[in-house]
Amino acid sequence: MRKLLMLLLIVFASPAAAEDGYDLWLRYRPVEQPLADRYFQHASAIVAAAQTPALSAASDELQRGLSGLLGRPVPRSIETGDGSIIMGTPALSPDIASLGLPLQHLGREGYLIRSTTVRGKHVIAIAANSDVGVLYGAFALLRRIQTHLPLEHLDILDKPDSAIRMMNHWDNLDRTVERGYAGFSLWDWQKLPQWRDPRYTDYARASASVGINGTVLTNVNATAQVLTPLYLKKVAALAETFRPWGIHVYLTARFSAPMEIGGLKTADPLDPKVRAWWKAKADEIYRYVPDFGGLLVKANSEGQPGPQEYGRTHADGANMLADALAPHGGTVIWRAFVYTSKPGEDRAKQAFDEFRPLDGHLHSNVMLQVKNGPIDFQPREPFHPLFGQMPKTPLIMEAQVTKEYLGFATHLAYLGPMWEEVLKSDTCSPRCGMPVAKTIAGMAGVSNVGTDRNWTGSQFDQANWYAFGRFAWHHELSARSIAEEWARMTWGNDPSLVAPIVSMMMQSRQAVVNYMTPLGLHHLMATGHHYGPGPWVGNLEREDWNPTYFHRADSNGIGFDRTASGSNAVTQYARPVASCFAKLSCVSDDYLLWFHHLPWDHRMRSGRTLWNELVGRYDAGVEQVGQMRRTWESLRGRVDDQRFTEVGAFLAIQQQEAEWWRDASIAYFQSVSKRPLPTGARPPPHSLEYYKALSFPYVPGH
Amino acid sequence: MRKLLMLLLIVFASPAAAEDGYDLWLRYRPVEQPLADRYFQHASAIVAAAQTPALSAASDELQRGLSGLLGRPVPRSIETGDGSIIMGTPALSPDIASLGLPLQHLGREGYLIRSTTVRGKHVIAIAANSDVGVLYGAFALLRRIQTHLPLEHLDILDKPDSAIRMMNHWDNLDRTVERGYAGFSLWDWQKLPQWRDPRYTDYARASASVGINGTVLTNVNATAQVLTPLYLKKVAALAETFRPWGIHVYLTARFSAPMEIGGLKTADPLDPKVRAWWKAKADEIYRYVPDFGGLLVKANSEGQPGPQEYGRTHADGANMLADALAPHGGTVIWRAFVYTSKPGEDRAKQAFDEFRPLDGHLHSNVMLQVKNGPIDFQPREPFHPLFGQMPKTPLIMEAQVTKEYLGFATHLAYLGPMWEEVLKSDTCSPRCGMPVAKTIAGMAGVSNVGTDRNWTGSQFDQANWYAFGRFAWHHELSARSIAEEWARMTWGNDPSLVAPIVSMMMQSRQAVVNYMTPLGLHHLMATGHHYGPGPWVGNLEREDWNPTYFHRADSNGIGFDRTASGSNAVTQYARPVASCFAKLSCVSDDYLLWFHHLPWDHRMRSGRTLWNELVGRYDAGVEQVGQMRRTWESLRGRVDDQRFTEVGAFLAIQQQEAEWWRDASIAYFQSVSKRPLPTGARPPPHSLEYYKALSFPYVPGH
Repeated sequence: MRKLLMLLLIVFASPAAAEDGYDLWLRYRPVEQPLADRYFQHASAIVAAAQTPALSAASDELQRGLSGLLGRPVPRSIETGDGSIIMGTPALSPDIASLGLPLQHLGREGYLIRSTTVRGKHVIAIAANSDVGVLYGAFALLRRIQTHLPLEHLDILDKPDSAIRMMNHWDNLDRTVERGYAGFSLWDWQKLPQWRDPRYTDYARASASVGINGTVLTNVNATAQVLTPLYLKKVAALAETFRPWGIHVYLTARFSAPMEIGGLKTADPLDPKVRAWWKAKADEIYRYVPDFGGLLVKANSEGQPGPQEYGRTHADGANMLADALAPHGGTVIWRAFVYTSKPGEDRAKQAFDEFRPLDGHLHSNVMLQVKNGPIDFQPREPFHPLFGQMPKTPLIMEAQVTKEYLGFATHLAYLGPMWEEVLKSDTCSPRCGMPVAKTIAGMAGVSNVGTDRNWTGSQFDQANWYAFGRFAWHHELSARSIAEEWARMTWGNDPSLVAPIVSMMMQSRQAVVNYMTPLGLHHLMATGHHYGPGPWVGNLEREDWNPTYFHRADSNGIGFDRTASGSNAVTQYARPVASCFAKLSCVSDDYLLWFHHLPWDHRMRSGRTLWNELVGRYDAGVEQVGQMRRTWESLRGRVDDQRFTEVGAFLAIQQQEAEWWRDASIAYFQSVSKRPLPTGARPPPHSLEYYKALSFPYVPGH
Repeated sequence: MRKLLMLLLIVFASPAAAEDGYDLWLRYRPVEQPLADRYFQHASAIVAAAQTPALSAASDELQRGLSGLLGRPVPRSIETGDGSIIMGTPALSPDIASLGLPLQHLGREGYLIRSTTVRGKHVIAIAANSDVGVLYGAFALLRRIQTHLPLEHLDILDKPDSAIRMMNHWDNLDRTVERGYAGFSLWDWQKLPQWRDPRYTDYARASASVGINGTVLTNVNATAQVLTPLYLKKVAALAETFRPWGIHVYLTARFSAPMEIGGLKTADPLDPKVRAWWKAKADEIYRYVPDFGGLLVKANSEGQPGPQEYGRTHADGANMLADALAPHGGTVIWRAFVYTSKPGEDRAKQAFDEFRPLDGHLHSNVMLQVKNGPIDFQPREPFHPLFGQMPKTPLIMEAQVTKEYLGFATHLAYLGPMWEEVLKSDTCSPRCGMPVAKTIAGMAGVSNVGTDRNWTGSQFDQANWYAFGRFAWHHELSARSIAEEWARMTWGNDPSLVAPIVSMMMQSRQAVVNYMTPLGLHHLMATGHHYGPGPWVGNLEREDWNPTYFHRADSNGIGFDRTASGSNAVTQYARPVASCFAKLSCVSDDYLLWFHHLPWDHRMRSGRTLWNELVGRYDAGVEQVGQMRRTWESLRGRVDDQRFTEVGAFLAIQQQEAEWWRDASIAYFQSVSKRPLPTGARPPPHSLEYYKALSFPYVPGH
């Protein structure tokens, strides 16, 4: 007994695992009694038959998770007893095969979890058609315990809505991250392939736990160097590390690579030498990475090279790469984010105009990756008109998990409601009742992950990684249910903790919209780095980079007329959608100034004038942040110190910056509208010149 | 009992603190029995009287350290009992005052540790003239336990050799780090001042534990922005975090700041407006940071602006800044690293030529910071001739802790022997018997610290941070004793672990010299990033950037003649030193080709020709790395898995790169010497053209 006590003291005295956020939603802290004992009756041992790398990963994770959650060692066993969890595929496990489970509709990645008996023993079976399906099932079972759901009488069939669920890392080979606010790139290229940071495995675990099955390692603003053997060796090491977790590696292809690293004089996609070069390059890549996913391409956009330089179309370029990858089962993912520099053109229209005509002209292994909205990851945009309108082309919805336009790492902005809003938007294509969710073949998330200890630059931005993965798996989940799941796993199951945290999260994105770009305004951020307000900027090289281009405010009114009297971008949507957007009586206030230019005295649904409404929205945004701070403060002592302090500090930054956004925007718009502030509204504390003069040359991510 | 067992299981089941290197040499893992019990008799409680921030820091650290090391809670107490540790200054603690300890020669930062009695109780007293002295004493006491030294009959008086013991961070405001191989900059400027990463405190703890008392936050290639209020607020937050740990903050001053952020038309140091601007700026800085240390300046060097642009001297520039700082007690630290672009001039001579004449012309609060050798942090250089030869000027020795020229983060190269070699070099100024160690007023270390989890990019590079601090405290310590101390604290006290680790460390720097730049060769690295060999490079804009300028190899011989028949740089040293360096019979093989150009067939002390010796050295370097790998492999199972694997992977990289260095260098020098390889020497596996064609555009730190 004395020895035991001493041991206990030693254990307690050694440094405890800090709550620094590294463990993400896979914290596996002990469940309270008597719940833990009850779970243990159904999860007392892990029985996995034939071992594959993915089955090993699944068993390891189950053991790690159950031992942590249940507060006692949960062994792996070769014998099935009462309370065992048995897992495998029918092909690998005779026990699983003997159960005759209905796996036929689960595809390669779905799974089944069922309470059943094997040779008279009560067990939980996790079964799937592939080992990776079993892995997803293992994470699902853990999630049940993490969120305090029962383990009795389970009969769960689950499979992903799409096969493409990928992270896009805008990571450069020098480890800087474009639009990255969480430190350096995770990929330590200099030390690869010899050194594989254990963090690579934890990244894969976290991604797999929410069903992510692909990762594009490199920036869409690409360098050809990553396609050289020096780097392909390193890529192969990452791919090998990710493979047991069901994650395929993709790279970005710089269209001019045949010239830059191939020594050719052209990158014309119809040139036989160019085509041969890419074919050979594809063969080479697959020698390094046999299960390579494919190539993601940003072409003829924002200075990136592309087929149009040779008078060829995007289809010519994509198909050429697709042909090179096809023998290996690889996919070309072509980005639709293009806007050429035609003066007078509505930037919002250009992706549609460029790509809609290509429907039916892309080879079968080409997918088109379309941002959620027609501009560029704004706090709020209507859904992209291409969704639903390229029936012959598989579309991937590109979401930005990193918060380039929503306050970087420090602003608490849960993006679930934004994605839910887009995914639920009815495309009315080919008929109404077809939400975006049903038109897409996959989702890509621009990663918010970096070397910061908490991975995402803030505790709450972890929720966006989590939510992205969950939405990619099931496009029609609710943002609230995901937030609740995440909050329970990340902060604890106490309802008095979960409720306020979820409430903060659910209002947070609308708060950002309010204090940055209310009522459908968009792209008002400062130039380049997009940190802070810049609605006055109107002198940039290209007119469609200017905030003034987007808000079009003058003494008469504000907003971008995209109806028939303006750019007529509405007509890119299916008729019922277009007609609603075009009509003041139908369009939501949320998209009002996206589609309409209106006089300052326009009477809003609220009864206020547009000008007063605008100021009111800015004030509401600031107030919502204040509310979040108060809610968080009320949790003092109920959240571990380290994370409590960090979140509190970030909320203080958010409040300061929300006020800055509000004050600077009102100072500017008032200088245009020439209208008095509504009664009671606080005048900005500084002059417009003050806000204009602020300069931030070293903002991250740029 | 059952409950206890359950508790124990829960504790064991929760994630253990991984051995990822984050804890550095402050691991505080439990000491084995019966030693722990024996220590506990002398360290069972901590009694600290009046609390200041530094005394709080000292008590916290003692409690953290003792509780970990002794495997049981060691409480803080207000009552002195047998086995208490009492600490404080005479002014703050009546008990300490009552002991009448001989503190008079300890200065502000020294400390005394004594076994004594207070009111009949046996205690250990940690006493000093200031609270920071007590803090250093607390770390010293912990170090004794960490290295298994006895706590009986203590009577230790210790104080630093110099008041300036500082880290220089070459960190940019965008968080990239020049010559940084450990990730991003620790300083998260975007989130400061509101968010203070707990890592800032751990950085300060680690620095203070080895006696470092200053930190220059920003790159010597400076931006003026850090002197604007936006950043000074952030600097103030860092200063406040570091203050309890005795660490003063310094910044780098861009000489042209008055123009860039002050709106002046000139930065002429004799211009009254410029002088007034800097005075006001100094006043402003001290309003933010009352104990600000001072400004570090790189001027008229490698493109940095400076006083010479206005026809003024370095003294004019330094004195102007010194006058601005003087009212606040601040120091100007002026770097002597200059080399103007005079064709035909020996770069090694220029700092001396430029600064020697300024001795006696610098104001009293100017210090001159001189690199350890006359070129630039090479694997081996003779000591800088300025040491000992500017008797009226306090000199700081600048050492590079980050391994720009010694293999980045991955090569195991313990720099202790290099610094010991320099510090022990006899300057013979004003007379022989005056080692560099006795001529300097401080040490500055170019930091190797970044956001990597292990802080320094590798486990073994932590030793260089540690050793730098220890040498800065006591300039005449031995590298071996420091290595042993560090190894015990970092890896464990088992002699069968300590001996091989220390042996690896002690040979490691010579291994790098051998496979990169043997026999006094220098600056043969590839251009810009300095990654890998580039001895063939001879086409750079400035002749003294070229490896061919430094090695001067041709068909007749190799080496830089710095004797009277050459640049005569030897005469910059005191006569006895110069005459030895100049004489082949006296000069060490280590500096041979630094000072002499010799024929390939020159007969070496070994009896071999110079050419054969050169090849032999390259081979020896590779073999030494092989030896290190074997030694490490022999420790398998005796070192925790995570660190064992990491070090092993890095040694594999080192071996590969050592071979690359050897092969490429021999391929090149053989193309010049036209001599056959010595019998048994392996020919390089590739042609010289192959090595020349290797290209690494994304090397870190550049």
